Formats: sequence, structure tokens, C-alpha cells
Amino acid sequence: MYKEVNVSKRIIMTPGPVEAQPRVLRQMSQTIVGQFDPEFLTIMSEVKEMIKIPFGTKNKQAFAVDGTSRAGIEAALIALIQPGDKVLIPAYGRFAYLLGEICQRAQAEIIWLEKEWDAPFEEKEVIEAIKKSQPKIVAMIHGETANGQMQSLAEIGEYCRQNELFFVVDMVATYGGVELKVDDWNVDIAIAGTQKCVSVPSGLSLITYNERVEKVLADRYQKELGLGDDEQSDAYISSNYLDLSQLEKYWSPTPINHHTEATVMIYGLHEGLRLMINEGMENVIARHKYNYEVLRESFAKMNLTFYGNMDTMMPTVLPIMIPKGVDGEAVRSTLLREYGIEIASSFGSLQGKVWRVGNMGYSSQKSNILLLLSAFETVLKAYGHDFDYGAGSIHALQMYQEKNDCAK
Amino acid sequence: MYKEVNVSKRIIMTPGPVEAQPRVLRQMSQTIVGQFDPEFLTIMSEVKEMIKIPFGTKNKQAFAVDGTSRAGIEAALIALIQPGDKVLIPAYGRFAYLLGEICQRAQAEIIWLEKEWDAPFEEKEVIEAIKKSQPKIVAMIHGETANGQMQSLAEIGEYCRQNELFFVVDMVATYGGVELKVDDWNVDIAIAGTQKCVSVPSGLSLITYNERVEKVLADRYQKELGLGDDEQSDAYISSNYLDLSQLEKYWSPTPINHHTEATVMIYGLHEGLRLMINEGMENVIARHKYNYEVLRESFAKMNLTFYGNMDTMMPTVLPIMIPKGVDGEAVRSTLLREYGIEIASSFGSLQGKVWRVGNMGYSSQKSNILLLLSAFETVLKAYGHDFDYGAGSIHALQMYQEKNDCAK
Repeated sequence: MYKEVNVSKRIIMTPGPVEAQPRVLRQMSQTIVGQFDPEFLTIMSEVKEMIKIPFGTKNKQAFAVDGTSRAGIEAALIALIQPGDKVLIPAYGRFAYLLGEICQRAQAEIIWLEKEWDAPFEEKEVIEAIKKSQPKIVAMIHGETANGQMQSLAEIGEYCRQNELFFVVDMVATYGGVELKVDDWNVDIAIAGTQKCVSVPSGLSLITYNERVEKVLADRYQKELGLGDDEQSDAYISSNYLDLSQLEKYWSPTPINHHTEATVMIYGLHEGLRLMINEGMENVIARHKYNYEVLRESFAKMNLTFYGNMDTMMPTVLPIMIPKGVDGEAVRSTLLREYGIEIASSFGSLQGKVWRVGNMGYSSQKSNILLLLSAFETVLKAYGHDFDYGAGSIHALQMYQEKNDCAK
Repeated sequence: MYKEVNVSKRIIMTPGPVEAQPRVLRQMSQTIVGQFDPEFLTIMSEVKEMIKIPFGTKNKQAFAVDGTSRAGIEAALIALIQPGDKVLIPAYGRFAYLLGEICQRAQAEIIWLEKEWDAPFEEKEVIEAIKKSQPKIVAMIHGETANGQMQSLAEIGEYCRQNELFFVVDMVATYGGVELKVDDWNVDIAIAGTQKCVSVPSGLSLITYNERVEKVLADRYQKELGLGDDEQSDAYISSNYLDLSQLEKYWSPTPINHHTEATVMIYGLHEGLRLMINEGMENVIARHKYNYEVLRESFAKMNLTFYGNMDTMMPTVLPIMIPKGVDGEAVRSTLLREYGIEIASSFGSLQGKVWRVGNMGYSSQKSNILLLLSAFETVLKAYGHDFDYGAGSIHALQMYQEKNDCAK
């Protein structure tokens, strides 16, 4: 006889999934409505509009894909790729390789531009590589969760547009935590998730694309077999589940049946976006920025250093070098088991060398950060790291107290 | 400024999505835990075991795919199909064409065996077609939601196994409502969803497969780029997101990173399966059967007839012929707008001719059925159908009252 799930309290300071907004979870406990119920169609149309705001876009198309972030990334790439198409992937961290993984399976010809993970690319390096390799698509990660680095995009986007390439950008780690300008940066398709700064449980991917992509999709659209065989295309997309041309019609005001929408997840998404927009995007971004400064300054006072170039770091993930002589996994598991605080390790060559502290969404709040810093000091000390005990946690407390005083 | 979602009360008597168990929704409002949190790994391993029970299988492999039912169906088919492979699809309803849609995109050679939608196939017809066409895979729907018909599988499965074909069966509409015998019927891969008889919100697909399929997957497995390039295959699967060979390792006791698990949905799935198993599969199936008899007898007393062969109908969907002179859509929308009761229309040639009443999961309970029947009589009468007013609803009431008396 299985028992009810009864999960323990957690403070989740990883780069995702982070704590869901309690109000989001409450919204999700509402009753199901059918996917073509008029009430649900209203919810969908509001969600479409709200998704656009953190992306910084006036695109007509924006909707959710029923799958985790990588479902949206795969949908975006296979919407554009036909076998043999050239895709340039500049890689400055782990998730560029996920883009490559997906492109390989879509039978693209991949041109890699690789570098050490300690910083993103100079935009001109990427533009040089484009000139040299003449791809159809440039696919990049905006904010790399593996190393906390963030790529500038405006010049690359401009060059792509001028030369009629497609620019696909994964904004999973920055959506809702950093100011995004999909339109100004000439990004053709942008993808995000729910489980990071939106503070909605994992399970949906968010996507937006412009008229250039709409045109491609119109050419590749094929009506689903079983709903009629009148609209066919020779260039149909390789997946039914992740076919953006069908999903676009499913999310239109006169929806054509596709999957059975995850209605309860959409309630949650509606609430997560709504709370964010009501807080005000500027305030949301300022909150992430300030909390990030507190974390960075306070960890530095614990005699800790960070991985990578400090000028190009993003405010949503802080990669901390595990000090010599300290058992990184023991620190992490002590924090989780004894304090209920989760931080992350990293991938690839950074595994075992770096802790990653997330600063995302609902998890990015004062009390979480103060609790983390105090507990971290205790555990660091217990595991033998040499530093001025109390310096980091008191510094953080003072930063917040001063901020409160200023606000008065 | 967007308002909070505040959905109206609904009685959902469609073939899915149906009402979620309130206890499932409460479970889903628990806090997030990380996907590699030891507590979550325990939940996953329990879910794996519970998924097997309604399938009637002792397979080692059973897990959830993070997407709606068709995500699981696509994952199953692309796990087996390589370009040019022959797939036989016997079609006695709409959803066989979804299988075809997916197989086409996977570049299979499809052999159709088609018939009118009023009944499933005689098993020997399918076996004859297999002999003639020599496919690698036979893909079928167990219970067809479009017409309420259910296919016998045991002989087909036996023939497939003897001849070393793969037998893939979509059990989305029957899982948790009908006794399933995946092992006895020699089904190699079976797929189900959460939004029907499991009474968990849409968003996950359930899958199980046997050692024959495990072997195929072992040959096609390729480690994700970015996690190492040591394990490669020439026959890798066309999708990363829906790659069962990677998902199998993600759901293993020593998980390899893939997507960010939809942890909250998994809490819900855990509870939905748990409640079903605690009720006892025999009791669950008997409840669906009895409620179906009540519906069928009571609707018949309203001078209504049903679509298709009565001997091969499944107990989870009842297709009612819309009587001549009655505006079927007006009846449906009146039920929804005025009573908050949702029933469904149908697809293809049955659209406009048939109403479909679902009898699934938590929605399949006495009070729902009695409310539906009373309201249905009122609306039918108002829209001009000629019948003995009260006969159906009173018959249903008496059936339940007699049952109560017998139980005393």
C-alpha cells in the first residue's frame, strides 16, 4: 500500500526548478475545464498576450508548448531545419550542446564555434564565423545555467537579419529575470520555460516567433491526418507533437484540435505571468539584480571566488568555486538534508569544481537569501574552509537593512 | 491588468479531459522539490511500479513522458521506426489516423487497413492483413474515443509475437476503466494518458514496454551531447525530447540528466494511481461498468439510439445518435452554459451526428450521472425531442437505489 506523497519543506536556490509561487499552486488546484470550453479559450488568449511581455516582443505568435523547456527548443529548431541545413552553434557552455543534440537528430549540418566556458563570445567573433560558414540558422543560448554567463545578442541579431539568416535563442535561464528585447535584438524564435524565473512548476515551454517564421510554418503546415487530408505539404515537420505549424492553429482564436491541453498547468502559467507583470517587469528585474549583488558580495566575504568573467555574468545563477580541501558534495548534501536548502553542482568540466547558486523568481527573495547565507557559513566552517565567520551573512543583513532604511 | 483565473464549476462527462480527483489537485499544491532530491527519486520509483498495475504488466520498464498522451504515442512509435519500415495500421476510428500521422512523419511505409467506424476488426482480418503485408510493426487503438468501440487484441498479439513483429497499442481511453492485460495480449509497447480514467490533469503520458523493446532501445541509445560523447549509435532516434532510450535512463535508479521533470504533475500522478489502486482495480472496473449500464439503459429510455455495434462498445464512452430535428450543438452548449455540464461532439463523419458521453475516472460517479440524466431530459425536451419525459432519469435513480438496497 503506497502512502500519500508528503514532501518536506525546501528552500530551492538552484538554477531551476525553483520554488513555485504558492498562489500559482493554489490556482492549479482549481477544477478542470475542457480545452474548448469558452472560459478556457479566454484564459489561453490572455496567456498568449502575457507571454510576450517578459520576452519584449510585439510578435503575433506566442504560446506554450506542453513539455519542459527542451520540448520548446526542439519544436523551434525542427520548425526551421530541413535535412542538410547548416546550423551554426556558438558554444560557451553546456546547453549549446543540447541545441546541437537536437540539430543532429534533425539531420542538420552543424558548424560548431567552441570556446572555454569562462565567458560568452565577443559578438564579432560569432559574426566572423557566420561569414565564414554561411549557415541558414544561428542557434545560441542567451544565459548559460552551467556557468552563469550571458551572451550579448544585438549585433549578431542585426547581422543575421541583414543577411536573412534565422536567429534562434534559448532564453530559458533569463526570461523573467533579465530584461529581454526579442524584437530589438532581431531574434526570430525565442524559447523560455516555466520552472525558473516564472516560478511555475516545470512542464511547459514558452515560445514566441515573428512573421518570418510564420511564413516558414505556413509553407510546412500539414493538416493532421484524421482531421482531413486537404492541406498537405511536401516539407512537413518531422514531429506531430512538436509541430509549431499545428500548435499555432491550436492556439488560434478558432482552434484546430491537437493535443489535450494541460489546462491546470495553464492556470498556473497564467498566474505566474500575471504576478510577474503586476509586480512590474522593471521591479522584477531590479529585485533579481539586487539580490544577486547581495549574494555575490556576501559569498566574496566568505573568502570564496567565482568562476568565469565577472563582467558578463547573469544575475540568475552564481557559480562559486569550491575551495580547495572542501568536499563540495558533502556541503551540498548537508545543506539539503539538514537545512532543506538545495543548491546545485555543475556539468562537464565544471562538475566537482563549481557550486551553482540560483537566484530566480519566487526563490529570489530576501529571507531565502539570508537563510542560505547563514546556513552556508555554518556548513562551510564545519567542513573546514577558512574565512572570517559571520562576515558574509552580516554583510547581507546590513545590505537589506540599509535598503529598507533608504526606502523609508 | 489581468485578473486571477476563476473557473466555474463543471461536471465533465466527456471522453477527457475529465474532472481531476480533488485529492490529486491538493497533492499538486505541495512545494517543489528538485528532480534529483532523494525524496523525489522515491516518488518516481513508486510511480513506476504503480503505472504497471492498471496495464496488467510485469514489464521492468514503465514511466511517464512529460507531454500529453500523443507525446507518449510518438515516443513509442519513433522508438521502433526507422525510415522505410513497414507499419500496418488497422483503422476503425479517428485515432488510428493519429498513429498514421506520426508514422508518416517518422518516414515509415504505412499500410492501411480501413473499415467503417461502427465496429472494431475481427482479429482474423487483421492477421490476414499482416500475412499479406509483412509489416515490422502493427499499431492499433485499443479503445476508440471517437466512436466508443473497443478492439480485441489477444489473437493479434499472439500472431505478432510468433512472427516477431512489434505490437504497439494505444490504451489511452481504456487505461483505468477496463481490465488491461498487456502481458497476456503480447503487447510490446502500451501507452496511456492521465486525463481520462486516472483523473489527473492532462500533461503526462504513461508508457510501458517489454524486453524486446528494451533491446531495440539499447541499440539505438546515444548519450546526450554535452553529457559526453562516449556512447554513440548510428541508429539514434529522431527526437531528443521523446527519446525513450534516454528517458529510460532518466527514470532509472541512477538517473542521467534529461529534461527537468514536471515534479508537481508527478505528485498528482502518484496520487491518482494510488487512489485507483487502493480502490482496487476490480472495483474500479466494476464501477465503470455499472455506471455505463445505467447511462446506456437510461438514454435508451429517452428514445435515443447509439452509434455502432453494441457488443463491442467500451464502457468509457457512449456515442449517442443525435435525433433528427434536434440541434445537437444547441443541446451541448445549453448543457455547458446553463448547467455547467460538458459532453462532447465527435470527429470526421460522425461530427454533427453523434454526441459522446464520457464515463471516466472520478467523473464516473453516481451523482454526476444522475445530474446529467435529469438535465439532459430537460434540455432534450426543450429542444423538441419526443420521448417519455422522466423515464430515463427515474430509471437511473431506481437502478442506483436498488443497488444500494442490495448492498445492505
